[in-house]
Amino acid sequence: MYAQTPKPPYYAVIFSSIQTKDIAGYNETAHRMLKLAEEQQGFLGVESARETLGITVSYWTDLTSINLWKENTEHLFAQEKGKGQWYKSFKTRIALVEKDYEFCS
Amino acid sequence: MYAQTPKPPYYAVIFSSIQTKDIAGYNETAHRMLKLAEEQQGFLGVESARETLGITVSYWTDLTSINLWKENTEHLFAQEKGKGQWYKSFKTRIALVEKDYEFCS
Repeated sequence: MYAQTPKPPYYAVIFSSIQTKDIAGYNETAHRMLKLAEEQQGFLGVESARETLGITVSYWTDLTSINLWKENTEHLFAQEKGKGQWYKSFKTRIALVEKDYEFCS
Repeated sequence: MYAQTPKPPYYAVIFSSIQTKDIAGYNETAHRMLKLAEEQQGFLGVESARETLGITVSYWTDLTSINLWKENTEHLFAQEKGKGQWYKSFKTRIALVEKDYEFCS
């Protein structure tokens, strides 16, 4: 459930989005993109949740890996579908994780 | 809905959590903590969503503001309630946002 990230530093891509009502094909593509991301160099894991706003945080070892994933051909196609059909809006933030800690009861 | 953050750099606190079944009092405290956070030095905004996993990302101008908020007396009390009652587990990551971009249809 939690992304099993290593000791910092590593990178987070925080993707916040609001969907349109036309999400036909979205789930299949999201599932495929997750499988594809898992095969990418530098991918560490992902966490996501959606209410009205969706938040997906993917974790990566470095900026080069993030940029390679952004330019992945199949991912580029999905990004275009996202802008044309599934997303009303989104905001992406690239952030360097400097510190983390956890709690487990 | 989206946090209205300024041009980077700024900080993100990515708080991922799984709740217990005993969330009595949680919503009231979460609402109060949001109001209180909004009054803090350096607070920029927050985004959150929950399915099984909850993700709350708060945004801050700098690390000092994040540490002051972590040590806020009323917030410390809420954190203790969280560990003792509401959260089965959580993971917190402190990250420096280096770049952001957005899309709006």
